[in-house]
Amino acid sequence: MSRSRLSFNQATAPNCPLPELVAGCVDAGIGQIGLWREQVGEFGLDRTAKLVASAGLGVSTLCRGGFFSGPDWLAENQRAIDEAAALGAPVLVLVSGGLPARSRDVDGARAHVADAIARLVPHATAAGVRLAIEPLHPMYASDRCVISTLAQALDIAEGHPVAAVGVVVDTYHLWWDDTVYAQIARAGERIASFQLADWVTPLPQGVLTGRALPGEGCVELDRLWRAVDAAGYTGPVEVEIFNADLWERSGAEILARTVRAYETVAAAVQA
Amino acid sequence: MSRSRLSFNQATAPNCPLPELVAGCVDAGIGQIGLWREQVGEFGLDRTAKLVASAGLGVSTLCRGGFFSGPDWLAENQRAIDEAAALGAPVLVLVSGGLPARSRDVDGARAHVADAIARLVPHATAAGVRLAIEPLHPMYASDRCVISTLAQALDIAEGHPVAAVGVVVDTYHLWWDDTVYAQIARAGERIASFQLADWVTPLPQGVLTGRALPGEGCVELDRLWRAVDAAGYTGPVEVEIFNADLWERSGAEILARTVRAYETVAAAVQA
Repeated sequence: MSRSRLSFNQATAPNCPLPELVAGCVDAGIGQIGLWREQVGEFGLDRTAKLVASAGLGVSTLCRGGFFSGPDWLAENQRAIDEAAALGAPVLVLVSGGLPARSRDVDGARAHVADAIARLVPHATAAGVRLAIEPLHPMYASDRCVISTLAQALDIAEGHPVAAVGVVVDTYHLWWDDTVYAQIARAGERIASFQLADWVTPLPQGVLTGRALPGEGCVELDRLWRAVDAAGYTGPVEVEIFNADLWERSGAEILARTVRAYETVAAAVQA
Repeated sequence: MSRSRLSFNQATAPNCPLPELVAGCVDAGIGQIGLWREQVGEFGLDRTAKLVASAGLGVSTLCRGGFFSGPDWLAENQRAIDEAAALGAPVLVLVSGGLPARSRDVDGARAHVADAIARLVPHATAAGVRLAIEPLHPMYASDRCVISTLAQALDIAEGHPVAAVGVVVDTYHLWWDDTVYAQIARAGERIASFQLADWVTPLPQGVLTGRALPGEGCVELDRLWRAVDAAGYTGPVEVEIFNADLWERSGAEILARTVRAYETVAAAVQA
């Protein structure tokens, strides 16, 4: 099974220095990397772009724009779009943000997300960057992302050209939804990114760093993968694992385990 | 605002001895109580039934049947139905259970829930107990309840007579769902129980004991309450709060705070 479709998301090894991570990806035959704005900012935007390009790595996604409940959301997202363009990332992942402080108006927050994305589309289109709305698991609805289902993401995306606004299908966030396969079929070419992570319990305090490597949890990852492929998706398969234990390991170990996990699922998809 | 519609769920004060809790409810003008099988078993079924009846308290619900992934689910749920009948509880809440150990077959687990409920209906109907399918928040889908949305619960319930199978609308579990108001309207007289709890973050390790008293979180409780009333529901409004900090308080303090929280929301509903 070729690894050319695998994209290693930087959040899976956030403590690994970028040069080491890039070299490790190249050594492992990984074709693409998903980058995070914080780490890119620390290493330097131009330096990152040069490092990745000279290594021959593609940039699958830049994580992340969004957080539209913040006061500076417009300028911040315009910067994120420009950074994605500078990095050669075709996709900017949008995590839409939760409720404003002390607000209970979830409908209002969702309407604001739709408005904010509409306002960003011209800038993104001009920059050649596709916006990708990522539904997050409903346990993040109040504090990270009021867009909780693929249906909600598509309701917003479909108001814009396919090339301008897509969606992210992340197995960790969507596996529980009994309508997910119907929504993946509906999404079709709206699928801008497919991300693999597995679900395990008990969830840790704050529920952020308890994701598992593909195959370690209860999600039908191969079925979801086949579904996005059947919907017409041919892009990268990105492994993005927020896991406090994994993060303690060396970059080399994380890469090796990620490749092994990816290949196990990929083999099941082909079977 | 009358408290006659308030039901105090025993899980809100699990450490309070039942006689003290019953006396506290009566003193506070609370008309009904929701009971839990574990505590009822400890105090004794007949003793509990007599204590509650002689105090003039109604029993709104018995929590809980379900957990259909367990090996002994049929006999266990038949016992739960019989206990509800003995307590005079018109409603048995069903928490349907998660995935079997090492299973990834969520569709299979959901199909089994539907089959199991169908198998229980004759026994429940004969006992005069209504089964109430409770959708739990999707963060519990793998280990507590594969029924995550009101739509899923209704899909199952609607295969049975209205008097035999209803649903639970718990604000904590459902607030994030952008289809919840449409599904409440669809539910109509299927609504067998309405439960109030509020959503706050960060979630604690295990995500079980982080619920908040009504008004302390971000949920539009008054809007949801009005929606269930508009759907035709006229039954108890049950306050069920799993909160590790609250559980440390005295029964009297928990009761007082619950009544105050309930009345604040009730006043907003009337406004």
